[in-house]
Amino acid sequence: MKLIKLAAFAAIAFTAPIFANDTIIPVSKETKDITTSLRDKAIKDDSAYEILKSLTTEVGARHPGTAGEKAGIEWGIKKLKALGFDKVYTEDVKMNGWVREVETAEILMPSYQKMVVTALGRSKSTPENGLEAEIVHFKSYADLEKSDDGSLKGKIAFISNRMERFKNGAGYGSANIARSKGHELAAQKGAEALLIRSIGTDDHRNPHTGATNVAMGYTAVPAVALSNPDADQLVRLMEYGHTPKIRLNIQTKDLGPIVTKNVIGEITGREFPDEVVVIGGHLDSWDLGTGAVDDGAGVAIGIATGAFIKNNVKVNPRRTIRVILWGAEELGLIGARAYAKARQADGTIENHIIGSESDFGAGPVYGLQSSDNISPNALHVVDTMAAIMGKLGVSRRSGNTSGGPDMIPLAALGVPAINLMQDGTDYFDLHHTPDDTFDKVNPEHMRQNLAVWTIFTFIAAEWPGSFR
Amino acid sequence: MKLIKLAAFAAIAFTAPIFANDTIIPVSKETKDITTSLRDKAIKDDSAYEILKSLTTEVGARHPGTAGEKAGIEWGIKKLKALGFDKVYTEDVKMNGWVREVETAEILMPSYQKMVVTALGRSKSTPENGLEAEIVHFKSYADLEKSDDGSLKGKIAFISNRMERFKNGAGYGSANIARSKGHELAAQKGAEALLIRSIGTDDHRNPHTGATNVAMGYTAVPAVALSNPDADQLVRLMEYGHTPKIRLNIQTKDLGPIVTKNVIGEITGREFPDEVVVIGGHLDSWDLGTGAVDDGAGVAIGIATGAFIKNNVKVNPRRTIRVILWGAEELGLIGARAYAKARQADGTIENHIIGSESDFGAGPVYGLQSSDNISPNALHVVDTMAAIMGKLGVSRRSGNTSGGPDMIPLAALGVPAINLMQDGTDYFDLHHTPDDTFDKVNPEHMRQNLAVWTIFTFIAAEWPGSFR
Repeated sequence: MKLIKLAAFAAIAFTAPIFANDTIIPVSKETKDITTSLRDKAIKDDSAYEILKSLTTEVGARHPGTAGEKAGIEWGIKKLKALGFDKVYTEDVKMNGWVREVETAEILMPSYQKMVVTALGRSKSTPENGLEAEIVHFKSYADLEKSDDGSLKGKIAFISNRMERFKNGAGYGSANIARSKGHELAAQKGAEALLIRSIGTDDHRNPHTGATNVAMGYTAVPAVALSNPDADQLVRLMEYGHTPKIRLNIQTKDLGPIVTKNVIGEITGREFPDEVVVIGGHLDSWDLGTGAVDDGAGVAIGIATGAFIKNNVKVNPRRTIRVILWGAEELGLIGARAYAKARQADGTIENHIIGSESDFGAGPVYGLQSSDNISPNALHVVDTMAAIMGKLGVSRRSGNTSGGPDMIPLAALGVPAINLMQDGTDYFDLHHTPDDTFDKVNPEHMRQNLAVWTIFTFIAAEWPGSFR
Repeated sequence: MKLIKLAAFAAIAFTAPIFANDTIIPVSKETKDITTSLRDKAIKDDSAYEILKSLTTEVGARHPGTAGEKAGIEWGIKKLKALGFDKVYTEDVKMNGWVREVETAEILMPSYQKMVVTALGRSKSTPENGLEAEIVHFKSYADLEKSDDGSLKGKIAFISNRMERFKNGAGYGSANIARSKGHELAAQKGAEALLIRSIGTDDHRNPHTGATNVAMGYTAVPAVALSNPDADQLVRLMEYGHTPKIRLNIQTKDLGPIVTKNVIGEITGREFPDEVVVIGGHLDSWDLGTGAVDDGAGVAIGIATGAFIKNNVKVNPRRTIRVILWGAEELGLIGARAYAKARQADGTIENHIIGSESDFGAGPVYGLQSSDNISPNALHVVDTMAAIMGKLGVSRRSGNTSGGPDMIPLAALGVPAINLMQDGTDYFDLHHTPDDTFDKVNPEHMRQNLAVWTIFTFIAAEWPGSFR
């Protein structure tokens, strides 16, 4: 490969102690030049897109405890090996599984109509033949809070507020409380079940599932999301003065103890093999779609970035690039928490120099944020990354970051992180729905992601100073 | 209403024999002025939108033989009466009902994946627990034709070509043969079932159902449509070299003889009450959505137009405006055929001066076509309509027309027709899917439709000459 002569660099190997960072260590011209060349090659490279195509097509949905998850794990191991990663291994993580089996809903009064619904994560089942009840409408979680405890006996609590659309997904947090905690509040108010408008920005008859705040067992009452058009329909019926009576049949199953895995592929550092730069995405997905934007894209970008660097430089970068395909993110960062806990226990957490996860879809990156965990003496390196990313439409942004959902446990233990902010304007149209499929992904955006992630990853692994 | 003094017109009543049309009879200035005033009022009127909202919300889907169809018929009668139609009645039409009960599909090999499918109209059931078979891929109906008879024993024939998007829906006809006749061809080739890519232009996990060429009984083999993303998935799997094995479980039921209805409302002509101008839409819908664009919009536009004219002129127009809410259009123009046959039998077909149906969604009208059945001496009237519609973005267009699906039997018997061409660019995103719901409708477009239809209907009913 003509780009680089890293063997020469190795000869003048930088020998500063790993965790000392008293001086400002520049990013060398050579590193910058190599990065620029990698960028200009990556922007024409479809490997991330092709990896995503394979995962979503040949595997499909990857919900913990299902055959799809197993197939996904096997796929991950095989793909990392095939692409030349130096080391490929998995780590078991224990958890409890949960699957949906039946989910139907009908309006019985004022006229018979079928609705499109999905159970939220760990939803309790209704009685075997479903339950029938009138709905009581609340415009928000806060409105449901205001009702008297026990006042909803024999009713279904319906929360109808709609998530707002923002480029950075800012509408998610505030809407999400109805999904995560609504079931407990509905139970407290005496309701038979919780029905929420999907946490999503689309207008299709595809409901959005998602986690509740329940880690084991079941929600307090059956917890169900309506597609946006169905939620509109209920609201309109009530505006006409009707009180819809509905039948809800939700059958779900606790699978008991299961084992999920973090799948890990490494490009071993030539100089500091124990020091790692963590990238990747989460391998699990919800069961309704094929997990293309959530988070096949992140998995593909992580794998492609590691492989692209490995296959386009003469020698490996100084540090180890550790691509982690996280397990069971959707059920509460289960793989990520186990990973961080194990590294805290064995002391290797200190070797995690910097990390980031791609888990906000397949849109183009427009911003680069750095976490407060980064040493002030290393911020110039992030600025350098941003400068080289500039040609790709990325600019330096303020604000702290954990570096993505699966980075949260590591960031909490002091691991520096960056956030490559993606345009998520359309992300919540697809997020957690049957519609999260490969056809929604733009190959041009995947190329841009590969180029951006290559810049971050190569510099982070090659720059001899520490971000800590 | 200040617009008009029709009593004065009546005094100089034009007494030309109805069917003679030897001379060119101008559209009077008064008629033009009234029409222009009606147009400028209708473009601000939300009644069509509100009627559609009520139908799709308070009734929902209206598939023949279901509770929804009954509710729709009752709704139609009530709505026409409430809006002041002079005469409201129904006509029974006998047919055979068919409903879907179960429709699931899974890829078993190379990995387990759920697919989103729907049975085509009158699909036969699979065995009770479904059937399992490998698929054989054909890029088009024509390609399936080329295979040897009996060669697909134990296989499922899969036709994958995609409908193209056009403003005027031009892609529908050529794609549709797979839906209507594919089941017979698949049976001839020995296949266990027919699987087609949905006849639709969207990319959502919502399959498109639709009629087959079967009027009674069942299709020759189970006939099933995949959502577009699912069809893409199968094609990609085969491009990877896999031969997908799938399980298909389709359970449907023939309801035997049922009665549907054409629901009719009239604004009685003040001078030629027996002469009718026919407008409307079809009241039935497919069962998956709520029949908003297909064809609640047409129903609402027809009702709103009749009511708007009735309530905004001092006296009724010369001829009767007959708003027909056609029954069972989706299953083969069943209500329309019965209507035309009865009028042929009783001789009143000759009283049908002109007609049109709105059945291409809720998009704005951009063109006005006239049928070859219209007398050359009446074409200037159509031109006048187009001129008054000009301000609304409508222009005169060439080409023959039947005036819409439910006008076909009448047009075949010589009834003149016009076609108010709607922008259907997005129509086949929603057509026959669960996604055909009220939220997709733009109120501005519904106002434009009301204004356009008012122009056509008022002039056709008021102009004293005949279109025949």
